[in-house]
Amino acid sequence: MKPIQFTLKSEDGFARLGELHTRRGTIPTPMFMPVGTAATVKGLTPEDLQAMGAPIILGNAYHLYIRPGHKLIEEMGGLHQFMGWEGSILTDSGGFQVMSLSDLRKLSPKGVEFSSHLDGSRHFISPEVSMEIQRALGSDIVMAFDECVRHPATREEVAKSLVITTDWEKRSRAVELKPHQGLFGILQGGMFPDLRREHFDMLKEIDFEGWAIGGLSVGEPPAMMYEILDASVPLLPKEKVRYLMGVGTPEDLVEGVARGVDIFDCVMPTRNARNGTLFTWSGKMHIKNARFARDPKPLDERCGCYTCRKYSRAYLRHLYVSGEILSSRLNTIHNLHFYLDLMKHMREAIAARRFSEFRTAFYASYGKNPPANESEETL
Amino acid sequence: MKPIQFTLKSEDGFARLGELHTRRGTIPTPMFMPVGTAATVKGLTPEDLQAMGAPIILGNAYHLYIRPGHKLIEEMGGLHQFMGWEGSILTDSGGFQVMSLSDLRKLSPKGVEFSSHLDGSRHFISPEVSMEIQRALGSDIVMAFDECVRHPATREEVAKSLVITTDWEKRSRAVELKPHQGLFGILQGGMFPDLRREHFDMLKEIDFEGWAIGGLSVGEPPAMMYEILDASVPLLPKEKVRYLMGVGTPEDLVEGVARGVDIFDCVMPTRNARNGTLFTWSGKMHIKNARFARDPKPLDERCGCYTCRKYSRAYLRHLYVSGEILSSRLNTIHNLHFYLDLMKHMREAIAARRFSEFRTAFYASYGKNPPANESEETL
Repeated sequence: MKPIQFTLKSEDGFARLGELHTRRGTIPTPMFMPVGTAATVKGLTPEDLQAMGAPIILGNAYHLYIRPGHKLIEEMGGLHQFMGWEGSILTDSGGFQVMSLSDLRKLSPKGVEFSSHLDGSRHFISPEVSMEIQRALGSDIVMAFDECVRHPATREEVAKSLVITTDWEKRSRAVELKPHQGLFGILQGGMFPDLRREHFDMLKEIDFEGWAIGGLSVGEPPAMMYEILDASVPLLPKEKVRYLMGVGTPEDLVEGVARGVDIFDCVMPTRNARNGTLFTWSGKMHIKNARFARDPKPLDERCGCYTCRKYSRAYLRHLYVSGEILSSRLNTIHNLHFYLDLMKHMREAIAARRFSEFRTAFYASYGKNPPANESEETL
Repeated sequence: MKPIQFTLKSEDGFARLGELHTRRGTIPTPMFMPVGTAATVKGLTPEDLQAMGAPIILGNAYHLYIRPGHKLIEEMGGLHQFMGWEGSILTDSGGFQVMSLSDLRKLSPKGVEFSSHLDGSRHFISPEVSMEIQRALGSDIVMAFDECVRHPATREEVAKSLVITTDWEKRSRAVELKPHQGLFGILQGGMFPDLRREHFDMLKEIDFEGWAIGGLSVGEPPAMMYEILDASVPLLPKEKVRYLMGVGTPEDLVEGVARGVDIFDCVMPTRNARNGTLFTWSGKMHIKNARFARDPKPLDERCGCYTCRKYSRAYLRHLYVSGEILSSRLNTIHNLHFYLDLMKHMREAIAARRFSEFRTAFYASYGKNPPANESEETL
């Protein structure tokens, strides 16, 4: 039996309701995964994450390899034990961070030589090394090692990259993982619908436990991302879970689910929280705004998170303006709760076959136009 | 009936077991008060503090006056409501911060004109202003406004300051507080035992609800502080609670209790936590030390705090070295738990009339000599 199982429970249009099973438990989908880059979701304890109902978080192979080192974590009992997290963990392969964080990369078919963003020391990462790191970390879901092409990129650059990426993904699959670990493949192809199809054809014979769509949310406009999603998601096998990597805004989550995506991750709710930008059902708010100085209301009256149940906008503004550590924590609790709550509302809407109504109501409340209108505007 | 009551339950040598009663509850003494400068104990929620059994915290009139403003806090329902803390709060008067934080002070019998440490704006604080601030904050225990003389200071400087301080404390008492608020007087007198006695004689007719010993832990060696405590504590009325302000190390707490002090506050456990210095029953440890990198043990095997129950030294070192927010929180939980646990052990020892044995055992475990030996060494 496969270590990672996906059960598709029902559909509403392209939107899917499902369950992803790992050794650590069942993850209802659609689901958002909080990002825990360096063996911690910044500012939160595992209990904070449990309290908001997060069944799975994301860890970062590149960061953990650089510091404190995957072997150290393995010695300490693996990533779950090290950070005290009993839920599931998905680790990314490091491919994206090698591209975005490190200088002086030297890419060859063998792998990537790069300098650490911390101390400039030289390192080498390949599909085999990435699998070794993720195996040592002991995550439940392992991502194949791929090349994530920068945006914008020419058709030729993307096509050339697909050859390397395909080889790397095959080599990723060839490495034996721990029995509880499942491997996800990653569909690349840049902003070219036909290259997306070509890449899927190159990969489809590899027996991955799930499929990710990579190379999006790299600077392209939302309409372009949705167009590529429209072209990519239908390629993927229905019976496998679909993961849109590094995405995104609340609107992106709604649009991703509308197109058949099951799981997401993004630093946006956590990073924005630390910068004082908060997500609410009525849109984004910047807590440092002077108009909140004497506002006794909660951040979002529709939110049931710890922060909204207990604190006023006035207090949250004071903590933010004063640079207090508690500001990061309370804001992060709120933003992640909002993201997880959004996913829960989407699951309920799909179960009730009312996803389309939910989507309309979401945009009306959130104060934005749905992307169809956006496309018209940008024509 | 007085808003703040103290019950002396038993004594063991000079050490006292008691209970301090406020509208918010009963505080067993000896007790340590975590410092919540800016309407938050840095990094912790009220629930974190409750979980470690803290019945009272300290707030800072100066800081809260500067930001966000005491009137804003009063509008938001007072400091308890603003920060969501249901326990007791003691606020200091701002006298110490005006001395230590602000530039360009201009002291007159009327009060102190000073520049904000945040933006240089000019402000004026007097006994009347300090009482107005603390009344607006709504703390349970209000501190009289005094002048805290720098160390070292000459006998003449200290004697001159006592005249002003005495006038300021009388004027503090003359201001009507809220019915639930009690006012504590502050004994000054620098490092001169006879001036301590003189100051008490100047103040003793004022009917304070409790007495603080101020002007210590300002840079003098521990032996000198203990000598001044020896000369000061016996002056104070037995039936009132005794508060040693801004003190101190774990050894200072033990020595303070040994001399009849009931309550303490200090930034040491919280500030040191953020700097990676942790207190354990075996002494201090610096978590960034490389020897903890692969150490699976808890910080302190004798500690029952959340941090010690859940995390390894290896993980705590990783969080600290990586500059993670969670590092501050977990370290702060541990250090405050240690301080509160130390107080609890002292209360139990006093109740069992074994305080002297406890003190000997504490020093043996903590790896330090008791102050008698320190004095000999420094002769």
